[in-house]
Amino acid sequence: MDNSKQITTLMHSMGTKAKDAAKILAGAGTNAKNAALNASAATLRASIPQILKANSKDIEFGEAKGLSPAMIDRLLLNEERIEAIATGLEAIAALPDPIGDVIACWDRPNGLSISRVRVPLGVIGVIYESRPNVTADAGALCLKAGNAVILRGGSESFHSSSYIHSCLVEGLKAAGLPENAIQLVPTRDRAAVGEMLTMSGVIDIIVPRGGKSLVERVQNESRVPVFAHLEGICHLYVDGSADIDKARKIALNAKMRRTGICGAAETMLIDRKIIDQIPLLITPLLDAGCEIRGDTAVQKADTRVIPANDDDWDTEYLDAILSVKVVDGVEAAAAHIASHSSGHTETIIAEDKEIAEYFLNTVDSAIVMHNASTQFADGGEFGMGAEIGIATGRIHARGPVGLEQLTSFKYQVRGNGQTRP
Amino acid sequence: MDNSKQITTLMHSMGTKAKDAAKILAGAGTNAKNAALNASAATLRASIPQILKANSKDIEFGEAKGLSPAMIDRLLLNEERIEAIATGLEAIAALPDPIGDVIACWDRPNGLSISRVRVPLGVIGVIYESRPNVTADAGALCLKAGNAVILRGGSESFHSSSYIHSCLVEGLKAAGLPENAIQLVPTRDRAAVGEMLTMSGVIDIIVPRGGKSLVERVQNESRVPVFAHLEGICHLYVDGSADIDKARKIALNAKMRRTGICGAAETMLIDRKIIDQIPLLITPLLDAGCEIRGDTAVQKADTRVIPANDDDWDTEYLDAILSVKVVDGVEAAAAHIASHSSGHTETIIAEDKEIAEYFLNTVDSAIVMHNASTQFADGGEFGMGAEIGIATGRIHARGPVGLEQLTSFKYQVRGNGQTRP
Repeated sequence: MDNSKQITTLMHSMGTKAKDAAKILAGAGTNAKNAALNASAATLRASIPQILKANSKDIEFGEAKGLSPAMIDRLLLNEERIEAIATGLEAIAALPDPIGDVIACWDRPNGLSISRVRVPLGVIGVIYESRPNVTADAGALCLKAGNAVILRGGSESFHSSSYIHSCLVEGLKAAGLPENAIQLVPTRDRAAVGEMLTMSGVIDIIVPRGGKSLVERVQNESRVPVFAHLEGICHLYVDGSADIDKARKIALNAKMRRTGICGAAETMLIDRKIIDQIPLLITPLLDAGCEIRGDTAVQKADTRVIPANDDDWDTEYLDAILSVKVVDGVEAAAAHIASHSSGHTETIIAEDKEIAEYFLNTVDSAIVMHNASTQFADGGEFGMGAEIGIATGRIHARGPVGLEQLTSFKYQVRGNGQTRP
Repeated sequence: MDNSKQITTLMHSMGTKAKDAAKILAGAGTNAKNAALNASAATLRASIPQILKANSKDIEFGEAKGLSPAMIDRLLLNEERIEAIATGLEAIAALPDPIGDVIACWDRPNGLSISRVRVPLGVIGVIYESRPNVTADAGALCLKAGNAVILRGGSESFHSSSYIHSCLVEGLKAAGLPENAIQLVPTRDRAAVGEMLTMSGVIDIIVPRGGKSLVERVQNESRVPVFAHLEGICHLYVDGSADIDKARKIALNAKMRRTGICGAAETMLIDRKIIDQIPLLITPLLDAGCEIRGDTAVQKADTRVIPANDDDWDTEYLDAILSVKVVDGVEAAAAHIASHSSGHTETIIAEDKEIAEYFLNTVDSAIVMHNASTQFADGGEFGMGAEIGIATGRIHARGPVGLEQLTSFKYQVRGNGQTRP
């Protein structure tokens, strides 16, 4: 049997086990799921030395491979980070269980009572890169929503993820839940990813967690529906009616709070009506070390502004760089966003409510905001407790993907002998 | 340019036009959409002679091709059927517009107000077979939900569908909506279907409407998410606690009201506790002309029962045939259903509420019922007004696919200057 056949056999065996586990999980009570999560957290805390040992193997491997210091930092676990993983599991245990929720119910004139009830999605595939904590975070969220999950971690974090996974399995066992509820692909072979992407009918949803090249590959190749965003080219539009002080603070926060997250602003559009106030908006950014790439009007506002080229309007910098352009009002801003946005998050700063509502209704991104920082684009900030990512697709999940988005539903119809005429 | 390139060019041009139309439709008001539907209905009524002429070409073509009388009947239009199509358009106009509905809204401790608001899905592809009325029904449902649609009708109904489509376009024009909101693929070339199935990123959802081979092809080949059901192998389980009179009436209705629809029962499971009452359940069916294929226990109940073989438990007859089996209580019934159901609709007949709730919670089909006929599995019967089909997938839409299921959502976040700490 050649290698690719072995991988196919392995993955399909994992798929069958996941489907079997999913059937049991669909009927698992909230207490059992929470018990598993809490027991996993306790096992993690009791296994700190072993996890650190496994992690040191990954770090060695990564250094030998010549990974950048930033990559090594993503890989690195220490006591504090392991404690954060354990606390994260307990936080997911503390979230309300979405399964069984009655989403809607109504009665028909013939006396039938119809309820739309939340049920698990089924089997979720999570494909991620170097951060070993995703093993626990993603595994726990899928479990809490009643799903079986097949995790495929990055080869760099192989040993760390494997040990964390074994702690999750201990938790499942302790709670009497099937071990196969959370499986980790036990090989570094990249063919496993390709195999997962073809497993429609077995895996219900694939969630890629990682850089653009991973997400791009998954989106292009997957035969299974995908919850993901490729990029977060988020826009901030400052309308002529804006309170400039609010705009200044929000712009600084949207760009500079954390530059590497998908909700960071990448482009600021400024209404021509307030062209003379551009310095008020960009000086704090420049002073904070942000590079500004502007059109000609913006270049005139400060000598530190670099000329923007066409590519800048379609670039997710994930860095302390902001492209800035002057536009003719909210309609031009919405048109620019329609052409250049990645459909993630956009915000308008305006005091004119009508203009703000026009923006909120017209701009077709997963999240549209008024007088708030794009950096609030996050499941936790939305009050969802935790998220597995942000989706920019239009099917099933859009925006933060939390517990509810990892569920499906069915209809329960209660009658008293009705037949259809 | 060879033929396949021509089809690719054609379909991608239609895709671009659909995307452009979808952008305009997303902002179209309810009045404009309803005006288009009502004007289309009026145009249809005013075009009866032309539609009948187009239809006679299709009938000639179909007869020359040797289509069965049943197929010819599906193709056939007459004044009454055209009037029904027009009335259907007006009924969709009269439904509430789902777009703009606030699905959920909540406030955060930092003062942000978050709303989940219904928006159109985008571009929908509908692939159907011989019934020309689908052109109007599917086009109208997609339009009412604010979506652009690309319709691909069967080659047999080419002329009828083309004329009906031209009436829809007249309606769109009269209402000032983009003509490309409803497009019909203007070729009989089957390569157009293959092309549609690859158009992810352009078409958001594909809905196949037709026989099993069409649905199977679409499900197997599509790179675009699909709303469909392959089969409706619906089960009726008669529990030991059942009111036998209710069970008898529901069984007769679930099987015999219409045998050719996806919600018709195909298998009856009977609790061993009431094995002596099998004649009460099957005699009315046998007397009504239903063939019963039973296991040994059922064969003993009536000499007219034919022995069931293994395939019978996995067969959608779509005919006056029912497979009947004795099982040991609700758990065995649920296990049989888990192995043999197509995930469409199942019903339990029981007076014991606890047993009924066990069934409703355990059985994982799109629709589960208690003391009601499976033939209620229908968007109209659910109060959704109209449906484009029934989905057995777990993503986005499950069960009847009505207007709401043809929408997506976005988040609107309203603040007063919030920045993320």
